[in-house]
Amino acid sequence: MIPITAEILTVGTEILLGNIVNSNAAFLSQELAKLGIAVYTHTSVGDNHGRLAAAMGQAMGRADIVITTGGLGPTLDDITKPVAADFFGLEMEIHAASHERILERYKGRALPENVERNALVPKGASVLPNDNGAAPGICIERDGKTLIMLPGPPYEMQPMFKNYGVALLKKNATRVFVSRTIKIIGMGETAVESQLRDLIEAQENPTIAPYAKLGEVHIRLTASAADESAANALLSPTAEEIHRRLGEKIYAEDETTLAETIIALLKSKSHTLAVAESCTGGMISSDLTAIAGCSEILREGFVTYSNEAKTARLSVGESILQAHGAVSAQTAAAMAEGAAKAANTTIGLSTTGIAGPDGGTAEKPVGTVHIGLYIEGEGTKTVSHHLTGQRNEVRKRTAILALDFLRLNLRTMP
Amino acid sequence: MIPITAEILTVGTEILLGNIVNSNAAFLSQELAKLGIAVYTHTSVGDNHGRLAAAMGQAMGRADIVITTGGLGPTLDDITKPVAADFFGLEMEIHAASHERILERYKGRALPENVERNALVPKGASVLPNDNGAAPGICIERDGKTLIMLPGPPYEMQPMFKNYGVALLKKNATRVFVSRTIKIIGMGETAVESQLRDLIEAQENPTIAPYAKLGEVHIRLTASAADESAANALLSPTAEEIHRRLGEKIYAEDETTLAETIIALLKSKSHTLAVAESCTGGMISSDLTAIAGCSEILREGFVTYSNEAKTARLSVGESILQAHGAVSAQTAAAMAEGAAKAANTTIGLSTTGIAGPDGGTAEKPVGTVHIGLYIEGEGTKTVSHHLTGQRNEVRKRTAILALDFLRLNLRTMP
Repeated sequence: MIPITAEILTVGTEILLGNIVNSNAAFLSQELAKLGIAVYTHTSVGDNHGRLAAAMGQAMGRADIVITTGGLGPTLDDITKPVAADFFGLEMEIHAASHERILERYKGRALPENVERNALVPKGASVLPNDNGAAPGICIERDGKTLIMLPGPPYEMQPMFKNYGVALLKKNATRVFVSRTIKIIGMGETAVESQLRDLIEAQENPTIAPYAKLGEVHIRLTASAADESAANALLSPTAEEIHRRLGEKIYAEDETTLAETIIALLKSKSHTLAVAESCTGGMISSDLTAIAGCSEILREGFVTYSNEAKTARLSVGESILQAHGAVSAQTAAAMAEGAAKAANTTIGLSTTGIAGPDGGTAEKPVGTVHIGLYIEGEGTKTVSHHLTGQRNEVRKRTAILALDFLRLNLRTMP
Repeated sequence: MIPITAEILTVGTEILLGNIVNSNAAFLSQELAKLGIAVYTHTSVGDNHGRLAAAMGQAMGRADIVITTGGLGPTLDDITKPVAADFFGLEMEIHAASHERILERYKGRALPENVERNALVPKGASVLPNDNGAAPGICIERDGKTLIMLPGPPYEMQPMFKNYGVALLKKNATRVFVSRTIKIIGMGETAVESQLRDLIEAQENPTIAPYAKLGEVHIRLTASAADESAANALLSPTAEEIHRRLGEKIYAEDETTLAETIIALLKSKSHTLAVAESCTGGMISSDLTAIAGCSEILREGFVTYSNEAKTARLSVGESILQAHGAVSAQTAAAMAEGAAKAANTTIGLSTTGIAGPDGGTAEKPVGTVHIGLYIEGEGTKTVSHHLTGQRNEVRKRTAILALDFLRLNLRTMP
């Protein structure tokens, strides 16, 4: 079967200058994937007539559907409509309904200069109403090809696409695509791939794509089928096999974050948490408080950089600090216990380490980190890592490994 | 003068599926703009040999410099290196220094399967070391054209480009471009533009480009000249004029972060700091501990979400909590004072607010935040804001506003 293909063409010099991130392309790609339309290329060009015309010609040559964003306004650097009219050899004309809509929009206010030019539309094109702005969207269909032009501001473009664009495309769609993302901590990308090599090599439908994130690996499965439930049925056996092989290394799927997973686990087991952070300096607390409702679980966080704070706040014994140093498994254990005791929680989680760039020694090089975990009734455990990378990479990896250490220990508990 | 042109070609199916936003293209565009290299096109393609080869051929045909990101790893769907080798008709060979680097990286650990394939490089290409991962970057120069291939993960790609890629590109430049970025908190983009309108309208060399970031506005000035000192001489009068107009709203220039500015200010005035965070939940402490050497300054952080913690740790009076609530200027003041007292510091900084999505009331809607600041010998001040946006936008804006409140108050002190 030949899939219906689409390309996304974003227009605007601000994208090429890096002043804005191209979130429109990501949004439209997600929406098209849901419709089972394969997106093979994204292109961004500036507000330049020649380069936009060339890019539009190439995209229309390759794909069944081209969706543009940006350059629909009434000013001189808004060139998408004239370029499209040239490409199809169409004249521009005032679209009566859009014109009325614009007059209605500015009723009782002064009409901004040139605003009526928003109603200029290539002859014979259909119009997608703009419920949140003055520039309508435009759709031109010719010889089995579709060009849809949408405005650039996301708050205009997104509802226009959802409310009017999807219906235009659905009449062309024959299949749906459904994705699942399986998220892993504690294995590198190559280790994941070597455990899944036979599946990856034999992949067909669903496709299997591993990719690396800082401290994590994600595996994306994508299946295509006639409808959503058939696609899900295709995904399930592969997802189950991956779960069987990687087991507890998998912390969540799709949009669920590690912090959400932890909060949900703690809630389900009626635990409360206190966090004591040295090298992560508040990052773990901050990650957890990103989740609405964390206040039921996270009672308190201690950022105890200094030895004095470790002693005053967490009752870490001076003898421990003297015998083993602030960066030691013994101190991590005492911090975790002290945090739980001070905040009256059932769990205490701690970090202490050398994030660098300075402070390393031969015995304790930069990247040495210790994580402590106290769980009421279970006692105290620690784990140590030797991490590579810059200061903030070490800090971020430590935060992830600490939360994952907590997750793994909670998982096996009743 | 014909400008040197570049294109950015991002490789990865996850971009075409909309699973990630293409932040690499934005980062590289900003960096190339600083070098005075004009970016005319961004293209994204998936992990598909034919489409990547076609896109690479087109980009190399149009531009002087093509920079790719992604697809450099050792796995089967990492195809950028073989496609480039085909394009230039080069064999692949093991790059000895990269191979050693990889073995060094995994010293004492099991070598993941295929990891050595990261050292495969097209013959005659030069290599950009990867200080944060296994896959080196690659640069091929032929017939006046340059292809630079960088890894996809931003934490590998960004330092590689800054530390090694910039130097490669600078040697091709016939003129130098020098940029200064002036960073502002406490004014919106339109307010900044209206204060600088005459400068922006008359801009020539240097160019003046304001752009909005979350909670900040940056103005990038770029001057081109025969050498760096001539470019700097062109920049100075404009930069000085902007400083004259915007004054204390400017917190730093270029790479200097708000946290670095604060740490330097506190150091120069021999202050020590304790932070007490409710709605920001550790974000301020974490931002400050991102700066090496912060331990001299930041004695302690308190994440006191609950009223109990505010009372136990910061001695916030129960009468204050009862009379005004946890989200109030009075509580913010008591938190700041209590943090400084408990940690024995000269300054205490606090936040309390309603980040949402729940917890708002008619009187204290979501986005209500209070910031408290105690300075020894100066007393306690508070400031309140009503912020818009999602939970984590409110949290991030609060952290920025709190640090900026501290900065503005330190600035006027002896």
